[in-house]
Amino acid sequence: MARAHNFSAGPAALPVEALEQAQRELVEYKDSGMSLLESSHRGKDYEAVHNEAAANIRELLGLGDEHAVLFLQGGASAQFAMAPMNLLTPGTTADYVNSGAWGAKALKEAQLIGKVNVAADCSKEIPTRVPTERELKLTPGAAYVHITSNETIGGAQWKTFPKTDAPLVADMSSDILSRPFDAGAFGLIYAGAQKNLGPAGVTLVVIRRDLAERAPATVPAIFRYRAHLAENSLYNTPPCFCVYMVALVTRWIKKMGPANLYRRNREKAAKLYAAIDGSGFYRGTARPECRSDMNVTFRLPSEALEDRFVKEAEKAGLKGLNGHRSVGGARASIYNAFPVEGVDALISFMRDFEKRNV
Amino acid sequence: MARAHNFSAGPAALPVEALEQAQRELVEYKDSGMSLLESSHRGKDYEAVHNEAAANIRELLGLGDEHAVLFLQGGASAQFAMAPMNLLTPGTTADYVNSGAWGAKALKEAQLIGKVNVAADCSKEIPTRVPTERELKLTPGAAYVHITSNETIGGAQWKTFPKTDAPLVADMSSDILSRPFDAGAFGLIYAGAQKNLGPAGVTLVVIRRDLAERAPATVPAIFRYRAHLAENSLYNTPPCFCVYMVALVTRWIKKMGPANLYRRNREKAAKLYAAIDGSGFYRGTARPECRSDMNVTFRLPSEALEDRFVKEAEKAGLKGLNGHRSVGGARASIYNAFPVEGVDALISFMRDFEKRNV
Repeated sequence: MARAHNFSAGPAALPVEALEQAQRELVEYKDSGMSLLESSHRGKDYEAVHNEAAANIRELLGLGDEHAVLFLQGGASAQFAMAPMNLLTPGTTADYVNSGAWGAKALKEAQLIGKVNVAADCSKEIPTRVPTERELKLTPGAAYVHITSNETIGGAQWKTFPKTDAPLVADMSSDILSRPFDAGAFGLIYAGAQKNLGPAGVTLVVIRRDLAERAPATVPAIFRYRAHLAENSLYNTPPCFCVYMVALVTRWIKKMGPANLYRRNREKAAKLYAAIDGSGFYRGTARPECRSDMNVTFRLPSEALEDRFVKEAEKAGLKGLNGHRSVGGARASIYNAFPVEGVDALISFMRDFEKRNV
Repeated sequence: MARAHNFSAGPAALPVEALEQAQRELVEYKDSGMSLLESSHRGKDYEAVHNEAAANIRELLGLGDEHAVLFLQGGASAQFAMAPMNLLTPGTTADYVNSGAWGAKALKEAQLIGKVNVAADCSKEIPTRVPTERELKLTPGAAYVHITSNETIGGAQWKTFPKTDAPLVADMSSDILSRPFDAGAFGLIYAGAQKNLGPAGVTLVVIRRDLAERAPATVPAIFRYRAHLAENSLYNTPPCFCVYMVALVTRWIKKMGPANLYRRNREKAAKLYAAIDGSGFYRGTARPECRSDMNVTFRLPSEALEDRFVKEAEKAGLKGLNGHRSVGGARASIYNAFPVEGVDALISFMRDFEKRNV
C-alpha cells in the first residue's frame, strides 16, 4: 500500500508495525479463539495487555510509587471537568494559565466547578506563545496550577515547565511521550491518546496518589480518580481495544528508544521551521522560543493561497495540513509516529508550491 | 481458526464477519492511505462511518425526529451520573427502580446528585426478578422514572415496559437491539456497546431532544447532553474505532433481519432454559416470567460443582460461563452475535457434566 503523509492533528499517524500487529491479531487474539474486542476485561488476555500498557507508560515517564497510571474515557475534555471536580475543593482556588484554545476550554469548565484565578492569559496574542514563569500570578495556597503543555491549535509549547508550590496539573494531550521531562514533579497529567499514544477513545491519567483522595464525597463515583485508582482502571469496563493499541504503541516507543525518538522529533520540527523561516513566503505563527515540536503552525501570504496550498497538498498525498477551523492557516502535526520522510516530502512540496505562487 | 464459544457477559461475542471486515480494513481504510484509527474525526471517511452508525441505530429502533442518537464515552457507569446531572434538576424528584446490581448502581449515583424516590426494590430477592408495573410507587410530577431493562448479573428482564407519566429512562446495556420495543416511548435510553452493539469504549445514548435541554448551566459542558447533540456527537473527539465497529455490527443486524435475530434470540434462550428446567440438577436463578433472554443465570447443586463446571467448560472451549463474582453460580450470556451452535454445545456439555456428577 502507499501510505499517505498524515499530518492530522489527531486522531493522527500511528506506527505501521503497531497497526500491522493489530491487524494480524484482530479476528483471533493469540490462542484464545476470539478477538480481543470480544474478550472479557477481567480475563487473563486483556489483563496482560492492560498491565503492559500501564507498565510501559510508567517506565517511559520514569514514575515512582507515589504516582498512579489510569486509563479513563472522555478525552482531555472530560478531564477539564474531572480535574476540578476532584481537586478544586470548596474554599480553595485553582490557578489556570490560558495559553490558547485548549487552555481556555480547561479554564471555562473549571469556572463552572469552583473558584479559579487566571494566572496568565496570552490566549489572544499573535504570534502565539505560552507565558514565561515570571509572568504567572499565582495564588498562595492554590489547590493546583493548570497548564497546557502544548497548544495543538496555536502551536505554542512550554519548553521548560514552571516550578510551583501548588501541585502542577497539565493537559499533555499533544506532546506526552514526545520529549523527556520530570513527570514526577507533576500532581496530575492527562492526555487524550489520539496524538502520541494510540487511537481516540482512551485517556491517560497520571496522578499523585494523595491527590486522588481529595474528591468530595458528593462527586459521582465514576468521576472520582480514587474510584478508578482503587480498581486499577477496572472500576467500569475500560475501552479495551484502545488500551491494547496504547500497549502496542508504547512497545514501539520502547523499541525505538525514547531518546532516539525525542531526537528525531526535534530534528523533524527544526527542519520544518528552517524551511518556513528560509522562505519569505511562509510565516510561522508561534514565537520562536515556544514553537511546538508537535504542531508546526504557519501562514501563507493570503487565505486564498492557504486554501490552494491545503488542497494541492492533499492531492499530492500530504493530508490534513489545514489549520484548525477556528484559526485558519496551515498546520503540520508531526507526532512521534510521523516519519522523517513525510517532513521531507512536505518541505519539497512547500518549495515547489512557493515557486509556482510567488 | 477454531472459534471458542464465548459466553462472556461483556465485552462479548461479535459477528465474525464484522471482525473480518475490520481486519481487512485495519491498516488501510478504503483508499485513504491510512488506518481509520489514524483518520481525522472531522474527515470524510470517519464522517461517513459516524453517520452510518447513527442512521442504522435510528432505523433499527424506529426513531422519529423527536429523538437524537448520540455516541458518548464512559459506558453505562458514566450515564448513571450524566442522566441525573442533566435531568434531575433542583426541586424535582426522580423515581428509580432497583431491580439488581445495575439498578442499584444507577440509584446510588443519582442519590449523590438529587432527590430520589425508590419506586420499587426487589434487588435482594432470590429468585431474581423485576417488579410488576402495579408495584411501582411513582412520584406525581417526577423528573423521570429509571429502570434497568435487563439485569446482566441477576438475569432478570422487563418483558413489557411500564407506562409512566414521567419520561421513562432505561439502562439497556445488555439487551438493546435484541428484541422489538417502542423506543419512541422512552425519554432516554443508554447502553454501553460491549454486549449487543460493538466493543467496549462507546456508549449509545438515545434522548428525546426536549429533555437534552434540561441540564442546568452549572453542569460541565462535556457532561451536558445538549452539547453533544448540538455537535452530532463531535463536541469532542469520539471513540472513532468503536463507533466504526458499531456501524459494522448494526450493518450485520440489518442484513440478518432484526426480526430473524429477535426470533433466534428467543429460541436460543428457550432452548437453554428448557435444558435447565428439564434437568433437576441445574436451577435457574430468575423467576420464569422475567427470565432474561440475554443472560441465562443458573446454579448447580453446590459451589464446588459450579467451580468444576466452569473450569471443565473452559477446557472444552465454552468460555466465560462463571457467574458474576458478586453472586457466583453460572451465567451464559447469549447476545445477538452468539450463535445457536454455541447454545447447543453448552446444552450437550451440561447433560454430560450432569451425568458425570449426579
